[in-house]
Amino acid sequence: MKMPSIRVFIITAMLSVLTPIAMVAQNVMPRPSQMEKKDGILRIDSSFTISVHGQQKLEALAERTLVRLQKLTGIPLSTKASKNPRTTLEMVCDKYDEKPQLFNTDESYMLAVTSEGAQLKAATRQGILRGIETFLQLVGRDASGFYVTSMNVNDSPRFQWRGLHIDACRHWMPVDVIKRNLDGMALVKMNVLHWHLSEDQGFRVESKRFPKLHEMGSDGNYYTQDQVREIVAYAAERGIRVVPEFDMPGHTSAWFVGYPEIASAPGPYQIVRKWGVFDASMDPTREETYKFLDDFIREMSKLFPDEYFHIGGDEVTGKHWDQNSAIQEFKRKNSIADNHALQAYFNKRILAILKKHGKKMIGWDEIFHPDLPKDIVVHSWRGQKYLAKSAEQGYQGILSAGFYLDHIKTAAFHYAVDPIDSTIGALSAEAQSKILGGEACMWAEYVSPENVDSRIWPRAAAIAERLWSRATVRDVDEMYRRLEIVSKHLETVGLTHRTSYAQMLERIAGSNDYAPLKVLCDVVEPVKNYDRGRTRPHTQFTPLNRLVDAARPESDAAREFNRLVDEYLTGKISNARMNTLNETLSLWKGNHARMESLLSGNFLMGDIDSLSRDLSDVAVIAAKLVEVLDSRTVLTDGQRTLYTKVLERAEKQRAALLLMIVPSVKKMYSVALQ
Amino acid sequence: MKMPSIRVFIITAMLSVLTPIAMVAQNVMPRPSQMEKKDGILRIDSSFTISVHGQQKLEALAERTLVRLQKLTGIPLSTKASKNPRTTLEMVCDKYDEKPQLFNTDESYMLAVTSEGAQLKAATRQGILRGIETFLQLVGRDASGFYVTSMNVNDSPRFQWRGLHIDACRHWMPVDVIKRNLDGMALVKMNVLHWHLSEDQGFRVESKRFPKLHEMGSDGNYYTQDQVREIVAYAAERGIRVVPEFDMPGHTSAWFVGYPEIASAPGPYQIVRKWGVFDASMDPTREETYKFLDDFIREMSKLFPDEYFHIGGDEVTGKHWDQNSAIQEFKRKNSIADNHALQAYFNKRILAILKKHGKKMIGWDEIFHPDLPKDIVVHSWRGQKYLAKSAEQGYQGILSAGFYLDHIKTAAFHYAVDPIDSTIGALSAEAQSKILGGEACMWAEYVSPENVDSRIWPRAAAIAERLWSRATVRDVDEMYRRLEIVSKHLETVGLTHRTSYAQMLERIAGSNDYAPLKVLCDVVEPVKNYDRGRTRPHTQFTPLNRLVDAARPESDAAREFNRLVDEYLTGKISNARMNTLNETLSLWKGNHARMESLLSGNFLMGDIDSLSRDLSDVAVIAAKLVEVLDSRTVLTDGQRTLYTKVLERAEKQRAALLLMIVPSVKKMYSVALQ
Repeated sequence: MKMPSIRVFIITAMLSVLTPIAMVAQNVMPRPSQMEKKDGILRIDSSFTISVHGQQKLEALAERTLVRLQKLTGIPLSTKASKNPRTTLEMVCDKYDEKPQLFNTDESYMLAVTSEGAQLKAATRQGILRGIETFLQLVGRDASGFYVTSMNVNDSPRFQWRGLHIDACRHWMPVDVIKRNLDGMALVKMNVLHWHLSEDQGFRVESKRFPKLHEMGSDGNYYTQDQVREIVAYAAERGIRVVPEFDMPGHTSAWFVGYPEIASAPGPYQIVRKWGVFDASMDPTREETYKFLDDFIREMSKLFPDEYFHIGGDEVTGKHWDQNSAIQEFKRKNSIADNHALQAYFNKRILAILKKHGKKMIGWDEIFHPDLPKDIVVHSWRGQKYLAKSAEQGYQGILSAGFYLDHIKTAAFHYAVDPIDSTIGALSAEAQSKILGGEACMWAEYVSPENVDSRIWPRAAAIAERLWSRATVRDVDEMYRRLEIVSKHLETVGLTHRTSYAQMLERIAGSNDYAPLKVLCDVVEPVKNYDRGRTRPHTQFTPLNRLVDAARPESDAAREFNRLVDEYLTGKISNARMNTLNETLSLWKGNHARMESLLSGNFLMGDIDSLSRDLSDVAVIAAKLVEVLDSRTVLTDGQRTLYTKVLERAEKQRAALLLMIVPSVKKMYSVALQ
Repeated sequence: MKMPSIRVFIITAMLSVLTPIAMVAQNVMPRPSQMEKKDGILRIDSSFTISVHGQQKLEALAERTLVRLQKLTGIPLSTKASKNPRTTLEMVCDKYDEKPQLFNTDESYMLAVTSEGAQLKAATRQGILRGIETFLQLVGRDASGFYVTSMNVNDSPRFQWRGLHIDACRHWMPVDVIKRNLDGMALVKMNVLHWHLSEDQGFRVESKRFPKLHEMGSDGNYYTQDQVREIVAYAAERGIRVVPEFDMPGHTSAWFVGYPEIASAPGPYQIVRKWGVFDASMDPTREETYKFLDDFIREMSKLFPDEYFHIGGDEVTGKHWDQNSAIQEFKRKNSIADNHALQAYFNKRILAILKKHGKKMIGWDEIFHPDLPKDIVVHSWRGQKYLAKSAEQGYQGILSAGFYLDHIKTAAFHYAVDPIDSTIGALSAEAQSKILGGEACMWAEYVSPENVDSRIWPRAAAIAERLWSRATVRDVDEMYRRLEIVSKHLETVGLTHRTSYAQMLERIAGSNDYAPLKVLCDVVEPVKNYDRGRTRPHTQFTPLNRLVDAARPESDAAREFNRLVDEYLTGKISNARMNTLNETLSLWKGNHARMESLLSGNFLMGDIDSLSRDLSDVAVIAAKLVEVLDSRTVLTDGQRTLYTKVLERAEKQRAALLLMIVPSVKKMYSVALQ
């Protein structure tokens, strides 16, 4: 064993989950509708108890809360609900509905904290659940111990549909991934898991009626029906509805491996291993297709108790329909003008089946068609404009455009997206009421169980706030402050977005000391939108164990560097902050030298060498620019040529990664050029 | 949000789980009996498959192995056992025993790896399980990818009983704690979970026959019978037997809260909250006691399928027996000489009950008595001498003396303990065969679900090697090298001994930056043996959220510092190592200044101030001693007085912590004084 080597290490500034400041009341995310701070505090120690009034069935929830409080503070608690009427936290709930919850369940709650104790009141168990999350986020500490500030909270959600969509098809997401994400969702008061269960790349649920679906369409990676029930129950305990999606008539290659007879082209079919839009599609003209789907939906309707059933409906290319003469004949005979109309015909048939089995239809934008009745829900991936249009026509809708987590955008970007966007025209009150909310989408082309948490969290918490809190809650700096706190809190319920970062870096480094790799990875981000697919060919079997898979979607360090540069350029920088700027540049300047031994012969670091070199080179330029700006001197021609060249090179993606400090240095450069 | 501050950070030198060196074959822990390296390597990529020959029921195991390999490498794999006869890894097993396994199950296996593929052969499923752990530990990487070196392994255990004892009573250990520790045990080839389920401080299993046991004796913290079955099945899948312990006739206060009628003193009883030995004891003279225990053992015998049943039997004070006139009268009438004989009478009665229910008795040292037959197993907490004595008399035995993890000793200490200790006299072959193995013991006075993993792991892996590998495997440096690798590997199966360290430090710091606290915590250890109980009063409700609870039982940094000092003092230090020594001292010297803001007003850091100051002061002395020794000058009288005083102060425990660098600096000091 070698001696612990000493390395300069960048510690991303983070507030503790339990912030030792009086402002802890301001840390709750999503921000509650009303919070009124009072004098005094409620001390939290090992005598902390919870009692349940009204509904004894809340006892299990009380016990889970006690376990979490114990985990948060390290204080051993009796984790049983107390029979004593006088307890630290009283939960008062008149109604306890064990039936599958409806999308319009009342989730409001009132929380009153005094130095004598706290009372949480709600009309439903869902309201109690939301209030508990607020209470746990209010736990702070001072010089004597843990506490909650005295206050009154009166809170309810802005939108009733606050979802997270998880694609378990393109990459398989085992049960534990889903469960820990349900815990994360509950923490930020999200209430719908939209579970994407069938795709060209995999069919992920056991079907007893059609066993070849999961047997031939999943590589063995599917949820058994017992596991589905387990997850649905786990979600319900946390006040989360589970809406399954079985995408049809397109995105269906994996169905056809076992059942080519319902396809539009003859087959045989294989599970698709690549990414993209494919032509496989159900045959909407044959009665056998509807017989199959009637039986299938009957089975799945029992397994998934929620009243909504998502049929996908997106991206039907129509090619296999055009190539099938029987389908062409059917269209002519029935005067179906085009493929969109044919899909509407299909959707109407499916709608009838869903109604028969007691379900409401939800589908992506493409299902919207004047032939369909108003009780469907349109799920928009195309934008607020489309959502507004269908709402004005009386269709209910939810928004996912702008909430695609796989686009690797910033939390600030998602935070700015509102399902009701006044900038695209005023919506009637009637139409506004049709907009139910939104869903963050985690499409799974480039995520694995190891890094999916880091793509969802903490950014989904910003979306959760957009969907829960008042529309006026929009301060981005303030959002980022709280996002950092909630990010840590999310790990206490089992998410791995922070710990897996270190573990992945350690594996990539394959060496004693991955600190320099962390310095580099802290300032890069994966390429955006669909650019990754253009960098090198990816399939379902491409290992996701490179730096781009470890890198966070949003670089806190680069954002903070940008802030320092702005302070510097506006002349508003303090001495302490100027020191930080200089130390940061100095760390980056020397980092490539420290990286060299890690880079050598490391098959997981292809293309990282030049990226690492550029970080150091750009830091050298930035330090030089500070010198030039401080001394009010002028750059030489040679410097200009060199800096332009280096900065151009440095802003190009390598290994599907972007060096996020370049824009700030370019800003300094352009000032120096003036 | 603040800018990432730059802090000097000590990175404890760690080898990656997947070591990129040819010596990966040497990393397996416990070390196999025979390993023969061949030329060539087996490449591991996304085409990796496993097939099962002989017993199709091994398929679930093949799938778990594929999931783990995927987790280890980040390579997506089809996680289904392959039907194709030609696969990367073939598992060949003739026997698959679904009955509860016996303690003498054959666990041997043969693993042959060539560049064409690997074959794992064993007579039993248990052998396959052990071989899989070896295979997974053999996965390494080179410049092109992941691989396993070609080799033949022929392996079998030295002892048949390789246990981990977990006390779930003094502090409650939820199901997930037990499960992840079972995964850790399997990784290092341990095969017995000794589950300590009843104590003065808690009764932890649901009894349907005597519900007041868990209802009144557990604060609600008990395993339901379903959970027990779940854990027993989980363990069996991993080739681990579950031996329950219900301690009797002493350590029984929690039983008597609900059932005072079987106690020796009238009661009423409460769950005990303090630590120590208490007088509560069953009444061994009343038939009602045996009727109760007959019914109780009948119920538990069905719940726990293992053939062994641990009755504890330790630390009966006899006080309540002496104070009970009916018991005194019984002793006189039946000519029972003393309380030890009375306990032997009790044990004989219990033995009869156990036999009736098909169980064999195991108990602590104290059950050993000439009146008892030879088919009991004596579990020694007192030492090899006692174990040897009972073995010579024909009793089977297992060792736990020297394996108490709660004593907070080093891995090297435990590693040196052998159940068959030739230094205390030669044992006959017959007697040697009676010594079945040993158990690491995790008593739970000072552990919580948050830090219990860090008290068990990685040290228990050194004990696991002692019990599995040949007696001649004794190289301590080599053990530490592999312990570090296996420690990381253990986290990949869900243990939290490394991640919880950071999380606990972060909570204690309660601040943006806990790096200086980590520097301090890296060089301290909790006090040893039972000293902690003497530092301040502890109860079951004392929060375990202080630095002593986060600190690792063994400081790698201090051990490494000691190595540096030894190299320095013997004049064998390289320039690079000398730089490391100087940089380390410089880091420590400045650390207290960096700690001050964390210490201020922090209720979780009582007594840490002086400890932190001493780290810096001792580092100043050490740096000065280097100067003096290098320049061959002499210490002044003033220096001598001061250094003696500081070092004396610094070696005293504070906050139940010891500063582990002091002995090395004292060593330097004594050389400088010469």
